[in-house]
Amino acid sequence: MGNTFGKLFRVTTFGESHGGAVGAIVDGCPPRIAISQSEVQVELDRRRPGQSSVTTPRDETDAVHILSGIFEGQTLGTPIALLVHNKDQQPQAYDHLKDVFRPSHADFTYQQKYGIRDHRGGGRSSARETVGRVAAGAIARKLIQPVEIVAWVRRIHDLEAAVDPARVTREEVEAQIVRCPDPVVARKMVEKIHALKEAGDSVGGVIEAVARNVPVGLGEPVFDRLEAELAKAMLSLPAVKGFEVGSGFGGTYLTGSQHNDPFYNDGGTVRTRSNHSGGVQGGISNGEDVVIRVAFKPTATIAKKQDTVDAKGQDTELAARGRHDPCVLPRAVPIVEAMMALVLADHLLRWKAQCGS
Amino acid sequence: MGNTFGKLFRVTTFGESHGGAVGAIVDGCPPRIAISQSEVQVELDRRRPGQSSVTTPRDETDAVHILSGIFEGQTLGTPIALLVHNKDQQPQAYDHLKDVFRPSHADFTYQQKYGIRDHRGGGRSSARETVGRVAAGAIARKLIQPVEIVAWVRRIHDLEAAVDPARVTREEVEAQIVRCPDPVVARKMVEKIHALKEAGDSVGGVIEAVARNVPVGLGEPVFDRLEAELAKAMLSLPAVKGFEVGSGFGGTYLTGSQHNDPFYNDGGTVRTRSNHSGGVQGGISNGEDVVIRVAFKPTATIAKKQDTVDAKGQDTELAARGRHDPCVLPRAVPIVEAMMALVLADHLLRWKAQCGS
Amino acid sequence: MGNTFGKLFRVTTFGESHGGAVGAIVDGCPPRIAISQSEVQVELDRRRPGQSSVTTPRDETDAVHILSGIFEGQTLGTPIALLVHNKDQQPQAYDHLKDVFRPSHADFTYQQKYGIRDHRGGGRSSARETVGRVAAGAIARKLIQPVEIVAWVRRIHDLEAAVDPARVTREEVEAQIVRCPDPVVARKMVEKIHALKEAGDSVGGVIEAVARNVPVGLGEPVFDRLEAELAKAMLSLPAVKGFEVGSGFGGTYLTGSQHNDPFYNDGGTVRTRSNHSGGVQGGISNGEDVVIRVAFKPTATIAKKQDTVDAKGQDTELAARGRHDPCVLPRAVPIVEAMMALVLADHLLRWKAQCGS
Amino acid sequence: MGNTFGKLFRVTTFGESHGGAVGAIVDGCPPRIAISQSEVQVELDRRRPGQSSVTTPRDETDAVHILSGIFEGQTLGTPIALLVHNKDQQPQAYDHLKDVFRPSHADFTYQQKYGIRDHRGGGRSSARETVGRVAAGAIARKLIQPVEIVAWVRRIHDLEAAVDPARVTREEVEAQIVRCPDPVVARKMVEKIHALKEAGDSVGGVIEAVARNVPVGLGEPVFDRLEAELAKAMLSLPAVKGFEVGSGFGGTYLTGSQHNDPFYNDGGTVRTRSNHSGGVQGGISNGEDVVIRVAFKPTATIAKKQDTVDAKGQDTELAARGRHDPCVLPRAVPIVEAMMALVLADHLLRWKAQCGS
Repeated sequence: MGNTFGKLFRVTTFGESHGGAVGAIVDGCPPRIAISQSEVQVELDRRRPGQSSVTTPRDETDAVHILSGIFEGQTLGTPIALLVHNKDQQPQAYDHLKDVFRPSHADFTYQQKYGIRDHRGGGRSSARETVGRVAAGAIARKLIQPVEIVAWVRRIHDLEAAVDPARVTREEVEAQIVRCPDPVVARKMVEKIHALKEAGDSVGGVIEAVARNVPVGLGEPVFDRLEAELAKAMLSLPAVKGFEVGSGFGGTYLTGSQHNDPFYNDGGTVRTRSNHSGGVQGGISNGEDVVIRVAFKPTATIAKKQDTVDAKGQDTELAARGRHDPCVLPRAVPIVEAMMALVLADHLLRWKAQCGS
Repeated sequence: MGNTFGKLFRVTTFGESHGGAVGAIVDGCPPRIAISQSEVQVELDRRRPGQSSVTTPRDETDAVHILSGIFEGQTLGTPIALLVHNKDQQPQAYDHLKDVFRPSHADFTYQQKYGIRDHRGGGRSSARETVGRVAAGAIARKLIQPVEIVAWVRRIHDLEAAVDPARVTREEVEAQIVRCPDPVVARKMVEKIHALKEAGDSVGGVIEAVARNVPVGLGEPVFDRLEAELAKAMLSLPAVKGFEVGSGFGGTYLTGSQHNDPFYNDGGTVRTRSNHSGGVQGGISNGEDVVIRVAFKPTATIAKKQDTVDAKGQDTELAARGRHDPCVLPRAVPIVEAMMALVLADHLLRWKAQCGS
Repeated sequence: MGNTFGKLFRVTTFGESHGGAVGAIVDGCPPRIAISQSEVQVELDRRRPGQSSVTTPRDETDAVHILSGIFEGQTLGTPIALLVHNKDQQPQAYDHLKDVFRPSHADFTYQQKYGIRDHRGGGRSSARETVGRVAAGAIARKLIQPVEIVAWVRRIHDLEAAVDPARVTREEVEAQIVRCPDPVVARKMVEKIHALKEAGDSVGGVIEAVARNVPVGLGEPVFDRLEAELAKAMLSLPAVKGFEVGSGFGGTYLTGSQHNDPFYNDGGTVRTRSNHSGGVQGGISNGEDVVIRVAFKPTATIAKKQDTVDAKGQDTELAARGRHDPCVLPRAVPIVEAMMALVLADHLLRWKAQCGS
Repeated sequence: MGNTFGKLFRVTTFGESHGGAVGAIVDGCPPRIAISQSEVQVELDRRRPGQSSVTTPRDETDAVHILSGIFEGQTLGTPIALLVHNKDQQPQAYDHLKDVFRPSHADFTYQQKYGIRDHRGGGRSSARETVGRVAAGAIARKLIQPVEIVAWVRRIHDLEAAVDPARVTREEVEAQIVRCPDPVVARKMVEKIHALKEAGDSVGGVIEAVARNVPVGLGEPVFDRLEAELAKAMLSLPAVKGFEVGSGFGGTYLTGSQHNDPFYNDGGTVRTRSNHSGGVQGGISNGEDVVIRVAFKPTATIAKKQDTVDAKGQDTELAARGRHDPCVLPRAVPIVEAMMALVLADHLLRWKAQCGS
């Protein structure tokens, strides 16, 4: 039952890494939203493996099929089924993982919880599950226009870029294979990723994201605050260990008089002079940029030999074979954007339900 | 519709700060759980104002009434209604806030979203709403026994305590009015809070919490991962700007070989040597301690004069009157514990539904 | 978890018959709906016991307290807590039911399911639970204006009234204590109820209801069709055994050419010449009157001696004491109306979310 | 958002009649349930068109593809994606329906609600949507073993069969193409259907269903009573206008002393002597057979010429072309069974969550 996200704009994903297909059903989308298959595909292409030297060399084309819910280029208001067949499967490549638990992976917990698991490529716990999220996010983006969402790699390990959330563009992000819009830092990030890959190791970092032009009023007190829903969305992604909105943990070093965002009248519009709130006050968007940061741990799959246990609980060693991302952040950028779009789409509909005219 | 938390152990809170009452309905609680009114009251007493020199001097006794769902000391399996009447109301004390928006409060966003607001004491956006959460959390704690939840103030501003999540006790926490179990740091924290209160300012910090004895298998991939639900629970609290599980943001400075938690056989039980995962792998509890950290911003209500706008959008100034917490963290400790208990109770029932025998 | 109704206009009821209180929380109500306490009270007075010779002589004034969500006569958009304290309690009157299962009541199933039950007055299974529904329904009615809902007793046992759903008024219904708008049949119904009461027996019948001025477009294919939601709403009431919309069971004796409702242009509006559909086509309202019928079984509590078993499963006999309704239909009329209002309110908001501008 | 059924055993269907595919996602299914593709296929074959002279001659093989959630013959506890590609499409056969509203169909209401519709074969409102329900129901049946569900045609127009719900077998039902287990009445039903088909007309009737071996304790007071969920399940099917449980409308002609089901001790088990309750008391199963009846209106699509309006609201005439079922009941039998299985599966998991050990 944990495979559905959203209350009104509802996304249900399905699929194991090496089963027949992965995908999503989007239910609740308003009718008459124009959407083409290529608008979905372009987002999937940003997520797909094999796109650059900093991602896994696995080549998955991930072509999307829209099976329902769209008629003559427009949404019908009925469920939209999005399907991507699994290809480039080398199930035998995973035989050595059938009876051993990879450290800091989901192998152990799935086996304990369900008493069964599809060990091939991580099965349901594979990041391949996010294919459905990205496809659904492409539709959400159309729905929430003119809201503009941009995410980027802000930090890899200790290499941090200074990026202005108010101005950064998707083009600047996409110009770098590592998806950090600062070209100088981006180059160093690529070098570090290559070096760690050589060493059979991996690395993590922080993705930052902004939503601009968010209307005032999105978010529901008390449990479904906009920041609470964003936090859940981000922590639901594989490898995420932390979340911040606005000033985040850093803001706790300020006093109230330093941290409060003064209101002022900006030519008829109420604005705030600073944005420590990150665009959200009392759980509701205030019209300023919504700014979040997401911490991704270093990839758990590494080539170095590690201590672990086997399916019988006996101590053993494991060194991963196969093709993996030494750093998930470049490919996670479109996924973070997709989740942000899903949250905003859901709350846009919720706003319409309760507060719309 | 955002006033309900949980899928199976469902808590719906209600009430404005200065309306007739605040409270909660707990639906889905299993039958035959022994619970007394005093077990609920003790948690409310930890949350209540006026308990020490570092909290607001408002005196709210917050006596709980259990109106349904409990019969002869045991839960019936029917909805449990928990009610706390509002007292010590000085509504006229809020007249000066009727037509002005307090910076970094919910006044502006509520007014914009709903076109109406109860301006007295923040209305629904008041932290008084958490009364219902704490009362419901007291029931959840009984349900999830022998799980043990302890939270504490880890940092106020730049004053940080070193606390061992594996060993810290509730008694150590409660021994300090600031709820930091390190007596030396706690004393400095109290001094800092007093000083900022004197200066008409406020301060924030970080609360850390642990759940011990959590069974393996709680948490639902993919969207309802245990850490995602905890993140939502915490970000749904007033003043929270950040969340971490396990290694959090700090873990992004490690490599995969440093960060991975090696499994080993500990006398027949599979354990991990380190706990960067924070007790959760693949969204599911792995039997290790679940450890989280929550960032609380400095209290928005300060006595210092601030720039803001009035209800007509005109620039004006505001200095808060009345009695407020210069630092919310000491009283937030039981609230963080309550939310953690609610998440675990919900997922315990979800585990029973899908994986129980 | 089964104590909440609706997806967007969400009503959670609570309370046992002889606990502290019964009531409801309404979440999701739009802001700025004008509602007074007396508008809620008037509906509760139609439901209350002791109102006439055909209802139970128990005297429950059932005064409603609105504890939250309404400010200066208008909804805030926050949860509305509605509370009715339980009075006229004679718990010792139920001591003889502690260890015996009343036939065709919920005593046995509650005991088996929960392993515990509040035996006083049926506890949670008492029709007293509907107090919360009726109070919430009064708010729903305000929300869905100008939709007009009228229900009436169409049949008691074999005494059936011919009533035109298109024209019957609430005043005509309320003019008869049995709530059948046909005065001649109503008089016979009262006589029959009195006679059966004398005989220590009880009787059932059929309530019919209409919603007029329902906008086109309410109802959600496929599972949440308007008629499916109405059916669930009605079967969720105590003593209900059947539901019909439009032609119902009788329509199965027609052929398709007789049953289909031809469309025609009525001065610019598309209408249907007949209304076998009952105002719903493909699960969505078509603008015609929504007409339903609900079958209520004879009251299970009777004074006649009956065979049954005790708490140990041993055969025994039971004759009910106390004060009961010999026929629930007169008091069920406002309850049926309330449930119909709740369904329409929920779907109005759902329409706004997905299809509203 | 109305395309998901169930709270814990959750089924989301998707697909238009003439889009790429129809199907369902089943979320929440427990792990390690053995299920084969052929067990799903056999139910779809009972539903498929073209199976006999009393159904539409359209030939849809409806081969199911299981794309996820099942591994080596067992459920994984992850979402089960069930897909059936649409074939035998003759979209041009529907060109004449693009700009006209078929009487008593969903064309008008869909167009009004969504402002767009897929006119080919009814689009989403087609009974083809039930493919996903039947496939999901096949899995639910495995989960709820040893519960046994049998449905049958009890009445076509005025031809009624006397069938004993306690004894009727699936084999007896399947032995007749009209799925009425009484061979004599069945033959007359076939003749009547053939005659009405010749006349360009259609016919409806009543399906009865029983669930045997249902454990005591399923069903949730107060809104999610077992009978309420069954009523919703059945009214969510196309063409359904009425629902009864146990004594239904007929029971309203009895008095309480006639209608009550006396308990007795049957060799250690508490049973009832009669079953007017239909296996449900207080919303909860009591261990007796759960018996329901469902009224299906005559098929709306008929060859006879009918009055209607076109897309511009102008009066016009319409005579259906193409291949339709003159009576939906024979093919609806497996659909009714599937919905009953989905309700029971959901409530079995709900019971485990709250009341399981």
